[in-house]
Amino acid sequence: MHKIAMLGTGLIGRFYTMSLQNFRGKDEIKVVCASKEEDAARFAKEFGIARWTDDIAAAVQDPEIDTVIVGIPNYLHKKAVLLAAEAGKAILCTKPLAMSGPEALEMLEAVEKAGVFHGYLEDLVYTPKTLKALQSTHKGALGKVLWARSRETHGGPHSDWFWTKELSGGGAIVDMGCHCIEIARNFIGKGIRPVEVTCWADTQVHPIDAEDHAVGLVRYENGAIGQFEVSWTFRGGMDLRDEVSGTDGTIWLNHWMRTGFEMFTGIGQGGYVTEKAEGDTGWLFPVGDEVGSLGYVEMFMDMFNSMDKGIKPMETFYDGYIVNTIIDAAYKAAQSKKWEAIEVKDWRGGMVNQENVGLKEYDENHFLIKEEKMADERIKIILKDKKTGKISQIIQ
Amino acid sequence: MHKIAMLGTGLIGRFYTMSLQNFRGKDEIKVVCASKEEDAARFAKEFGIARWTDDIAAAVQDPEIDTVIVGIPNYLHKKAVLLAAEAGKAILCTKPLAMSGPEALEMLEAVEKAGVFHGYLEDLVYTPKTLKALQSTHKGALGKVLWARSRETHGGPHSDWFWTKELSGGGAIVDMGCHCIEIARNFIGKGIRPVEVTCWADTQVHPIDAEDHAVGLVRYENGAIGQFEVSWTFRGGMDLRDEVSGTDGTIWLNHWMRTGFEMFTGIGQGGYVTEKAEGDTGWLFPVGDEVGSLGYVEMFMDMFNSMDKGIKPMETFYDGYIVNTIIDAAYKAAQSKKWEAIEVKDWRGGMVNQENVGLKEYDENHFLIKEEKMADERIKIILKDKKTGKISQIIQ
Amino acid sequence: MHKIAMLGTGLIGRFYTMSLQNFRGKDEIKVVCASKEEDAARFAKEFGIARWTDDIAAAVQDPEIDTVIVGIPNYLHKKAVLLAAEAGKAILCTKPLAMSGPEALEMLEAVEKAGVFHGYLEDLVYTPKTLKALQSTHKGALGKVLWARSRETHGGPHSDWFWTKELSGGGAIVDMGCHCIEIARNFIGKGIRPVEVTCWADTQVHPIDAEDHAVGLVRYENGAIGQFEVSWTFRGGMDLRDEVSGTDGTIWLNHWMRTGFEMFTGIGQGGYVTEKAEGDTGWLFPVGDEVGSLGYVEMFMDMFNSMDKGIKPMETFYDGYIVNTIIDAAYKAAQSKKWEAIEVKDWRGGMVNQENVGLKEYDENHFLIKEEKMADERIKIILKDKKTGKISQIIQ
Amino acid sequence: MHKIAMLGTGLIGRFYTMSLQNFRGKDEIKVVCASKEEDAARFAKEFGIARWTDDIAAAVQDPEIDTVIVGIPNYLHKKAVLLAAEAGKAILCTKPLAMSGPEALEMLEAVEKAGVFHGYLEDLVYTPKTLKALQSTHKGALGKVLWARSRETHGGPHSDWFWTKELSGGGAIVDMGCHCIEIARNFIGKGIRPVEVTCWADTQVHPIDAEDHAVGLVRYENGAIGQFEVSWTFRGGMDLRDEVSGTDGTIWLNHWMRTGFEMFTGIGQGGYVTEKAEGDTGWLFPVGDEVGSLGYVEMFMDMFNSMDKGIKPMETFYDGYIVNTIIDAAYKAAQSKKWEAIEVKDWRGGMVNQENVGLKEYDENHFLIKEEKMADERIKIILKDKKTGKISQIIQ
Repeated sequence: MHKIAMLGTGLIGRFYTMSLQNFRGKDEIKVVCASKEEDAARFAKEFGIARWTDDIAAAVQDPEIDTVIVGIPNYLHKKAVLLAAEAGKAILCTKPLAMSGPEALEMLEAVEKAGVFHGYLEDLVYTPKTLKALQSTHKGALGKVLWARSRETHGGPHSDWFWTKELSGGGAIVDMGCHCIEIARNFIGKGIRPVEVTCWADTQVHPIDAEDHAVGLVRYENGAIGQFEVSWTFRGGMDLRDEVSGTDGTIWLNHWMRTGFEMFTGIGQGGYVTEKAEGDTGWLFPVGDEVGSLGYVEMFMDMFNSMDKGIKPMETFYDGYIVNTIIDAAYKAAQSKKWEAIEVKDWRGGMVNQENVGLKEYDENHFLIKEEKMADERIKIILKDKKTGKISQIIQ
Repeated sequence: MHKIAMLGTGLIGRFYTMSLQNFRGKDEIKVVCASKEEDAARFAKEFGIARWTDDIAAAVQDPEIDTVIVGIPNYLHKKAVLLAAEAGKAILCTKPLAMSGPEALEMLEAVEKAGVFHGYLEDLVYTPKTLKALQSTHKGALGKVLWARSRETHGGPHSDWFWTKELSGGGAIVDMGCHCIEIARNFIGKGIRPVEVTCWADTQVHPIDAEDHAVGLVRYENGAIGQFEVSWTFRGGMDLRDEVSGTDGTIWLNHWMRTGFEMFTGIGQGGYVTEKAEGDTGWLFPVGDEVGSLGYVEMFMDMFNSMDKGIKPMETFYDGYIVNTIIDAAYKAAQSKKWEAIEVKDWRGGMVNQENVGLKEYDENHFLIKEEKMADERIKIILKDKKTGKISQIIQ
Repeated sequence: MHKIAMLGTGLIGRFYTMSLQNFRGKDEIKVVCASKEEDAARFAKEFGIARWTDDIAAAVQDPEIDTVIVGIPNYLHKKAVLLAAEAGKAILCTKPLAMSGPEALEMLEAVEKAGVFHGYLEDLVYTPKTLKALQSTHKGALGKVLWARSRETHGGPHSDWFWTKELSGGGAIVDMGCHCIEIARNFIGKGIRPVEVTCWADTQVHPIDAEDHAVGLVRYENGAIGQFEVSWTFRGGMDLRDEVSGTDGTIWLNHWMRTGFEMFTGIGQGGYVTEKAEGDTGWLFPVGDEVGSLGYVEMFMDMFNSMDKGIKPMETFYDGYIVNTIIDAAYKAAQSKKWEAIEVKDWRGGMVNQENVGLKEYDENHFLIKEEKMADERIKIILKDKKTGKISQIIQ
Repeated sequence: MHKIAMLGTGLIGRFYTMSLQNFRGKDEIKVVCASKEEDAARFAKEFGIARWTDDIAAAVQDPEIDTVIVGIPNYLHKKAVLLAAEAGKAILCTKPLAMSGPEALEMLEAVEKAGVFHGYLEDLVYTPKTLKALQSTHKGALGKVLWARSRETHGGPHSDWFWTKELSGGGAIVDMGCHCIEIARNFIGKGIRPVEVTCWADTQVHPIDAEDHAVGLVRYENGAIGQFEVSWTFRGGMDLRDEVSGTDGTIWLNHWMRTGFEMFTGIGQGGYVTEKAEGDTGWLFPVGDEVGSLGYVEMFMDMFNSMDKGIKPMETFYDGYIVNTIIDAAYKAAQSKKWEAIEVKDWRGGMVNQENVGLKEYDENHFLIKEEKMADERIKIILKDKKTGKISQIIQ
């Protein structure tokens, strides 16, 4: 059983708290911190939390608590993490870890030096669908992963600070690209080094300095591609999907708008439908279990169970650091209009798996390119001569 | 915090236990009971349960426990419930409550006389999707509910006793019709009295005495229809869907095979995919969070939270009793080939809401039947003369 | 190449004409007939048809035409068909064929006596999806068909006469049940005799005499069930789906609202979206090829190709007659609250296929009930002893 | 009525012929040409075509025919088109128009000089879904289009020549990128100039020289992005989807694997399921109307109707030329690892629409960034001060 200081009472603090307090759990939030004391007080009252404060240091140093959850704006993560590391508390930090790769590295070094437990709250790799899909992928159901697309788009974030580049560290890439990058990286394999990025980013709609729409491609050492698509310009709700292609299979995940819940109402229901839904009449696509579907439930289970077992959780500050370095390269590429190298100072991954996935033998002299049943039921076999390289076909 | 005796170690006992032990919960299973001691012992070891037995009475009377969960075959429910009521324990009983309406009534009277907490473990009304859909329905998003179809079909149950009519009380209707009937009843409104049933039931495929396929219609006092479709002959996995139509809206829920998780694998993954999935190559439709999607998580939360608050849970033995009476009428109708009355001995529901949903005024002299935009963009209005009853149309 | 008299200029006449005139076809409409000459004239102008009239006899007897298409209200079908038979023209009649079984029989006898080509324009069995699904079913992909559900629901028909029982012959059952009944019959097998019907029908919403919502079950001689669901009370657009279950497979068809075309618009598009769509903002589900998706294109191809080849089309007046007898029994059952026999005067179907689909041998002494992989990867086999009938299980 | 020489008897020639011969059409194929006379003869017999040849010039110069359809391998397009232009015939050429931009320009100049009708057979912009989606887009339902993703991936082409770079002009980009590029261009607007491309291309699986997987981004002058995703490495069938995002709406099209036709079969059907389907048991997703769904039917209608009316079809050789220039830039970018300019020699498009889509006034002093309903039902408004640029929020 853990006693927690919750830093932050915005959307993310609310989701975290709901996740922790549902399900008759053992772990308890003992103190909550917001930038305005009145917000902290109201939040504490709403969720039955004993103490509240507007002072990060006081929350972190509260003697009863053993765990700090950082759910405050990006520009405050470093401050909170350094304070918590100093206080010797376990630290769970929301995404993105930092405003940049170097800042993330500084935070990583601080927690490692302090020897405290550190978890990176990248919830979307913890959705039940994603966990099960990763399990299938790791068991080999897809063969070698060749490409992973992760997409998060909606009408934009919920707080003013997030629209202000200086406070958030960027726009849609920092906000949601961090999710997409890490999801793809989990499918491709955390041991495979991400090498370079090309990226388009633009401010298409809003009167802001940061990008409100971006697409990027991350090339990994083994040739796999992670593709992220993020937007604050999307209309229709929140589009949260992943697609993974491997040599032997395919996975498609839809986390939000097409999950088997469809409702038409001509008259509405007088209230909230689902996070980021647009409108409340016509065809609506609510989500049954919002906090579960976003991965919060499984994420905190992994964090606290790992703490109890003395092992690392699935996502650590190291992962957060890798993500920040990829984001840095993406911003650089969006400016330079070239592929840009990803600069990981401290690569801890494994060797690249060098297997040649492509070459299937047909016979002594030929590789098989393709075998298929045609509309007239005959079989066509397309071959490549190993010596001459000539491609030919046989119809059986 | 509650201490629990778990009766049953089959599929249902396993799902219940997984639900209770996930999420770092406070409530603990202290003793487990199976018909064979070796099964109980193996189960206890797997889930870290302190004690095991093959004696229902011993489990129920265990002095440490305050709650009995009944997850054993249907023909044993009554025995277990009467023992637990006598022991003064809170009782949570799996579905169907009993083998028949009269047996259910006996059990209901026993728990009410003993004054113990009683919950009916009808998990499928507790799925996050169903709860949210019920909430929208109760808020009025659909207007008056006119028709609710609930369907559960798959390739048949997992244990020999369930295929044996004497031990289960019937076939697919008893097994799954209980879910479908109660889901429809929740959407239509628990205060509305179910009046009569027509039902087709047949043994189409298996060498058994009980029906392996059935469809029934339950008419409610306010004219609404609950439609149940159940089958042990279905191919392709488990089909678990609800459809609700109201005067002002529609809800479609798909709980199992089309929930936003799609996987193609040419080579499989060497193991279990999802409950009742067929095959492990080709296009597969895994479920991310199986126990959550089936409602187990929310169901136990409601049960234990209600116990703590001293209130009734959403589903009690009374609901189980109503379901059993409807099942009895369905079996009778399948035999008699007529609509059969539902005989509720102890109706506790509310009055029928008598509102006339249909009549929309167009003007002083006409009711509006329909107004629509035609393909050529003109508006067509179809009217009924209040006096003459004549139907006519105007094109604008 | 055929020359056609088109009777009717309502929704159905429009769809028929669009189908015939698309695709640079050879067959030509030479005369069009409407109850009001001005409607006929406007229609002729819109579609470039040479002649128009408000006189059915004149249209039918037009010397240039060889084919009459009957697309007028139900109560006029008989008159038009008898005139056309007398004139020796090929006759294609829209659905339902007649107001009742006896009327349909009279029409069938008239065309057979006159020796003219007769086609029943049951378009929905001709949708490209349905044709392909029927082909797979007939090739055995589903094994024996056990159950076929066909559903058509929307907000009600487009013309005043259709809401008037005396002119249409009934309500939603006559309007759409005819489709659903014949779709199910095609899947189950036209050679299998439909035996009896149970039916619920009610007027739930509209100020009309006819039913606006109904569900019926049609039992076939081989035990298969055809289930029809029809409603004029549905909200959200047009729900047009079929579901078929067989011993070896399953087919799900969605013809209208979920066909791979999804659009969200916050501002609308200032006009028609798709037949029976509700609203023009929010999430919309247009249909790409409306006339193709409803089967009109393939239906007319079959009709004219069959005429040219001198063979019967897939759907003849005999099929229309069978459908009318089933509708009659459904109305009777809705009144009597019993299963009612279907009275086919002139059964031309084949013998019932008596194969025992259910009994799979496991070994000399046992039938196999079920074999499955459990969550823990073990295999469970459920057996029935041939002599004792006892059901048991083995775990491997 | 047109008389046609069909060049090509492979998959594409077969689909074209089926499209033209279905639907009792007026236009007739009079001669067919294949590289091997025996293939031409067999094809002519199968489809009832009067004459056949293995000589392109002979087919093109056949005095009876007025229209040449070019459905032969890419490296032969130019030869066939130049011959047909010389012969003064109308020319319909399959995609891609040419092996490169300069070759396409030469062909364009030839047909324009000869003054013959020229159509570019880009079928996928003619699918009924795409046509309707384009219509909605052009009517303004999406506002300004910001991004269009078009994806075509499958297990690779059906003929040996297509796997041989010298004969096809490239790999997956040439094969399918041409579709995706032109689909996106239609949504974004043909009058908007495509400016530059970034592209990743790799040979991930097959023993070939050409790329078997690629993703590219095409930036248009107005800031919109066309995204193409093509692969011959995809598993599970053919993935054919488009996604379009605009300032006011979203469109999602799925053309192939999720169109409302789902079939499970445990035993198969002994034959062809659908183009590029994998496997014939388990869950399958057939397509009802394959030639219609791929756009062939509407495409030929537009071509022949335009010929008859003396107007340009929707897609001309000029469009084919633009597509080839974009492909050239994509290949260059894949090599250079930079964004590469698209070099259109002869830009005929309109002016860029310069409207400022983003700035919505909130009041005299503020732009509105976002307005939303929060989970607690309050309204949050995020604003930007016009003078200071500061972003702030109001909660109502």
